Amino acid sequence: MRPSKRKPDELRRVSIERAVSKHAEGSCLIKFGDTHVLCTASLEERLPQWLKGQGRGWVTAEYAMLPRATHERTRREVTSGHPSGRTQEIQRLVGRALRAVVDLTKLGERQITVDCDVIQADGGTRTASITGAWVALHDCIQWMKMRDMVKENVLRDHVAAVSCGLYKGEPVLDLDYAEDSNADADANFVMTGTGGIVEIQGTAETTPFSEERFTDLMQLAKKGIGELVQLQKLTVA
Amino acid sequence: MRPSKRKPDELRRVSIERAVSKHAEGSCLIKFGDTHVLCTASLEERLPQWLKGQGRGWVTAEYAMLPRATHERTRREVTSGHPSGRTQEIQRLVGRALRAVVDLTKLGERQITVDCDVIQADGGTRTASITGAWVALHDCIQWMKMRDMVKENVLRDHVAAVSCGLYKGEPVLDLDYAEDSNADADANFVMTGTGGIVEIQGTAETTPFSEERFTDLMQLAKKGIGELVQLQKLTVA
Amino acid sequence: MRPSKRKPDELRRVSIERAVSKHAEGSCLIKFGDTHVLCTASLEERLPQWLKGQGRGWVTAEYAMLPRATHERTRREVTSGHPSGRTQEIQRLVGRALRAVVDLTKLGERQITVDCDVIQADGGTRTASITGAWVALHDCIQWMKMRDMVKENVLRDHVAAVSCGLYKGEPVLDLDYAEDSNADADANFVMTGTGGIVEIQGTAETTPFSEERFTDLMQLAKKGIGELVQLQKLTVA
Amino acid sequence: MRPSKRKPDELRRVSIERAVSKHAEGSCLIKFGDTHVLCTASLEERLPQWLKGQGRGWVTAEYAMLPRATHERTRREVTSGHPSGRTQEIQRLVGRALRAVVDLTKLGERQITVDCDVIQADGGTRTASITGAWVALHDCIQWMKMRDMVKENVLRDHVAAVSCGLYKGEPVLDLDYAEDSNADADANFVMTGTGGIVEIQGTAETTPFSEERFTDLMQLAKKGIGELVQLQKLTVA
Amino acid sequence: MRPSKRKPDELRRVSIERAVSKHAEGSCLIKFGDTHVLCTASLEERLPQWLKGQGRGWVTAEYAMLPRATHERTRREVTSGHPSGRTQEIQRLVGRALRAVVDLTKLGERQITVDCDVIQADGGTRTASITGAWVALHDCIQWMKMRDMVKENVLRDHVAAVSCGLYKGEPVLDLDYAEDSNADADANFVMTGTGGIVEIQGTAETTPFSEERFTDLMQLAKKGIGELVQLQKLTVA
Amino acid sequence: MRPSKRKPDELRRVSIERAVSKHAEGSCLIKFGDTHVLCTASLEERLPQWLKGQGRGWVTAEYAMLPRATHERTRREVTSGHPSGRTQEIQRLVGRALRAVVDLTKLGERQITVDCDVIQADGGTRTASITGAWVALHDCIQWMKMRDMVKENVLRDHVAAVSCGLYKGEPVLDLDYAEDSNADADANFVMTGTGGIVEIQGTAETTPFSEERFTDLMQLAKKGIGELVQLQKLTVA
Repeated sequence: MRPSKRKPDELRRVSIERAVSKHAEGSCLIKFGDTHVLCTASLEERLPQWLKGQGRGWVTAEYAMLPRATHERTRREVTSGHPSGRTQEIQRLVGRALRAVVDLTKLGERQITVDCDVIQADGGTRTASITGAWVALHDCIQWMKMRDMVKENVLRDHVAAVSCGLYKGEPVLDLDYAEDSNADADANFVMTGTGGIVEIQGTAETTPFSEERFTDLMQLAKKGIGELVQLQKLTVA
Repeated sequence: MRPSKRKPDELRRVSIERAVSKHAEGSCLIKFGDTHVLCTASLEERLPQWLKGQGRGWVTAEYAMLPRATHERTRREVTSGHPSGRTQEIQRLVGRALRAVVDLTKLGERQITVDCDVIQADGGTRTASITGAWVALHDCIQWMKMRDMVKENVLRDHVAAVSCGLYKGEPVLDLDYAEDSNADADANFVMTGTGGIVEIQGTAETTPFSEERFTDLMQLAKKGIGELVQLQKLTVA
Repeated sequence: MRPSKRKPDELRRVSIERAVSKHAEGSCLIKFGDTHVLCTASLEERLPQWLKGQGRGWVTAEYAMLPRATHERTRREVTSGHPSGRTQEIQRLVGRALRAVVDLTKLGERQITVDCDVIQADGGTRTASITGAWVALHDCIQWMKMRDMVKENVLRDHVAAVSCGLYKGEPVLDLDYAEDSNADADANFVMTGTGGIVEIQGTAETTPFSEERFTDLMQLAKKGIGELVQLQKLTVA
Repeated sequence: MRPSKRKPDELRRVSIERAVSKHAEGSCLIKFGDTHVLCTASLEERLPQWLKGQGRGWVTAEYAMLPRATHERTRREVTSGHPSGRTQEIQRLVGRALRAVVDLTKLGERQITVDCDVIQADGGTRTASITGAWVALHDCIQWMKMRDMVKENVLRDHVAAVSCGLYKGEPVLDLDYAEDSNADADANFVMTGTGGIVEIQGTAETTPFSEERFTDLMQLAKKGIGELVQLQKLTVA
Repeated sequence: MRPSKRKPDELRRVSIERAVSKHAEGSCLIKFGDTHVLCTASLEERLPQWLKGQGRGWVTAEYAMLPRATHERTRREVTSGHPSGRTQEIQRLVGRALRAVVDLTKLGERQITVDCDVIQADGGTRTASITGAWVALHDCIQWMKMRDMVKENVLRDHVAAVSCGLYKGEPVLDLDYAEDSNADADANFVMTGTGGIVEIQGTAETTPFSEERFTDLMQLAKKGIGELVQLQKLTVA
Repeated sequence: MRPSKRKPDELRRVSIERAVSKHAEGSCLIKFGDTHVLCTASLEERLPQWLKGQGRGWVTAEYAMLPRATHERTRREVTSGHPSGRTQEIQRLVGRALRAVVDLTKLGERQITVDCDVIQADGGTRTASITGAWVALHDCIQWMKMRDMVKENVLRDHVAAVSCGLYKGEPVLDLDYAEDSNADADANFVMTGTGGIVEIQGTAETTPFSEERFTDLMQLAKKGIGELVQLQKLTVA
């Protein structure tokens, strides 16, 4: 049995609150149970040097945790002078996930930066970040549409993410911290609203796992991401 | 007339919500109008090297702004490798303010770090930080008392802060961003519940000001801080 | 047809030359076609601070590219002051892969660092690094056995890695640079000698891909890794 | 009684030696007793990026201490990779103080950087820096006038600074190190030649102080700054 | 007697293998006994900011050691955030040595960077680097000539380097690590093919040495460099 | 003719003022014409980690230039986060020069750091630094002798340094900036009071030079260093 008493294929309670920032062009506070992430999308009329003059835009993401988002206080990364490997991995992942569903040429020569700041962490911060980032990005693009800055179809599809893992030998959906820190294996799946795979990252924590087990995890992920996309649709409707 | 239509000696609407963090020993979300700061107090059974073995504890503070707390997105400080001068000034100020009302010898050889993370900024983030940090610190010390880790009188007094300034020539209390960015002078006052002065930082932005004007600002500050301390009392009652 | 004229399920010519370093306890130069990686394993009688006194050892990896390993010269990372996100991702991946097949408690309180330095790059540097790192690690552990520092079964299995991808819509094995830079999707697989999955990292570069396509990639990977493990066995026999 | 036997309202012996640098456009060596600061003003025909094209110039300051300016040797800040919070606070303060008396539009699109390097420290380095920096700045502007680069009235007023504090309960002027390290409170005042307030920074070191005490400190400061401005006038006459 | 049984005026076995890199415009692997350095020359159509628009090019060098090039593993310099003093000294030396024999005005507004990466170290890495760097540079310039990018006489002469030292009181040529770590004095000489002196760096390790001894070292160096230049000529013939 | 009208073998006017620092155990201000260097020796009862427990001490040096020591203002090195290659070369050179004349075992487990801060630069800052550093070191050791911390013969000899160069084809002694920036070659010599060679660093700036020319430079250096040692003797007599 899972520590949270959830069924193996049950997500935590997920909620998305839109327009939580006075300043950002798009924003939401997404909660996967006790994991809370503030996502803000910022539009800037400038591009990184290497992208200038190519007639297309860019979408990127940054990720950070507040020091006491975690059980023990974590040192701020500014103190060590650069983002940790983990932070960089996550923000690169979020950026790739968002770009997979954006038509960058229709965006024009502009950059949208989605900041995912973890206010409170209880496992699954990267999957909550991706799922919330899509909402902030959606609202930012709506903001641009209302000002005739872009036309239709900049955002081609939904994208959402969930983790699955082997906990006490059983495949379970959406690991919280108590499960994640004791899982035998864990995998993050990023998929689109139409079921396409964008990213898969699976890792055996203790012992290698079989192809069959991996297939089980993917089936759970498809179910979970389907539900998350459904919630995104309700949220922005 | 002030952009917010407030009277010269009127604070913004201030609210303090306690226990907003699942993990921290003490926490609050303080709002001075549209300025929102999350304050968490973290207890650690360790001390900086230079303080070890002296039979007393330490209280320190860290301060940061989320990138899109501001009107335009601000670059994360981790990107430039170290906290800006402004950030360091503010976190040193918050730390000094808190230590002025703590009996460090009664704390034992432990450190409390109060993190002040600005979720949304509209002027006065440092004064909101100090006022909220006191509540987080108070609750952390309560947490320790309930576990018999400390006795009475660790926290000797309240401490709160407010800014005042000369806006269109008139002394006004608690500047918001619209006022702050156009003020002729601005001053931050940190005072205790019993009216003692802990810190004064006054700066002429455009033209030097007279001693009389400075006295006006101090009178406004005393009134405002009195109200903030009153709110702190109601909050932790 | 592939630029290299290889069949879809054909590896590049792979060679492993052992004992190429005068100083290292274990070393090899591995070549996946024009991708050449020097792997050295260094034994040190010390542990990272957080691991001390737990009665077990540690295996870690570092990764770097020489500046002119690439088609255009790449700036040295020391110039920007810290390893890039890509470098950190890869060295964390190599370390996890190796630890999946080592019994750390049997290693004793020691650390083995495997350095993977890319002398020349033509795609697949991370998979060549993992495959070669296993050989360097194996020889380092042999070196320890010959000095009675460890007993049997420190190294529990082989581990090797290969990339697969969708190139012009077709699943192909072991992408070189010409394929990698034009692939629709690419996935890195890390598996053990007994066929267990250690890591899967799949990314859609341009358009999301289906579950069926992903299964095709995994079948190619199993074939390729089987051949690489066979070569490792011949090499250390 | 003060350790230096000075009267409560007595400055240390202050001297200013002009034109001590062969290269700088303006320079002086200022001594407040055993506190010696070398101030050089450097004119550069360039501006920070954010100021370009606005038709006005900039005045900024940098501050540092030689490693053995202090009783114990202090580590060079270059060793830790960035200026400390204290250094940044001081150099921002000196810059603001100077800009308060300069008409930046009359300066043209140029930058003057005043470097304040503490050769020997005995308390009050920031107030000596401001007082000396004004002389270096004055001479740099004279240098420009002699070359017809600027017209009259670039420099609108004098600016000088002094510290005051509560030492053994008594308000005293211009604290040296022996007093500063034992003061109950200390405050730095920056004022113009015509008596306008530019900056006030007051801090309770041990116990909060009353408004009356603060007023005492301000009276001492006015007297001290009056004398320092008088010395500036004699120096540049 | 020398640990390697060489005669006092005998170089180690030196070999130079050209064109070892698939990507670089010029490259070689040079071996001075067990000291192996990979030298690659990279042509770039850009210049450092301070050189632009002067009608001439630039030749620069970078130097690094692989972590396990040495007997004990050395920490990567990227970990400490910047090149060590030793690394900077060496790369500045190699750059100066190469520029001494290049006609920069004939190079055009381009930069050639020669990277010297020590694969294995056994003393004399800087002298092997200079000697090999010349070959990589020569081949890069040949590459340019074949594409009519430069005319004749860009490369005016050979340049090569060797170390000499006092080992057990006797002057010896080309110190290996066993000698270098026990030498009383050591000196690096950089000379051209026509016998001109480009650089001399002599250091007394334990006790100061006499002018006569220094003259002995220089005679050895002239003989050794003559042989190295002879080998360069055979290599590029 | 030299720009300064000096004879080829004539030093600039050299002066050494002792005991210029209130805090340092030894100090001097040395002037080689318009090159002014403040040298302070600081005694610390601690050692670098790698030297502890070996029964001997350490002497090290640090070097820096004030920003406006130079004709154009130089950016502070703290701004770029680490000492430049040039700074590191010089401080390593000064440290080696001093250690060549100190009996480290007689020093005890202590460290003396000599800081050489260039107040004003006009060429030859490293040679002035070495020559002045010896005086500061001497006085620091005297300070220790007076407190019975060390016995006789800690300081075994004098050490001083001078530069020589080929200016308009002629060998000249002690180059100032005007000569140095136009020299064909320049060499720094560090020698002891008894004429032993400690360091030689010779560099051809434009064209390689002959062995005969180098011998000329060394003769000039011997003369100049003889005079500098004579001045050191008078200074500390």
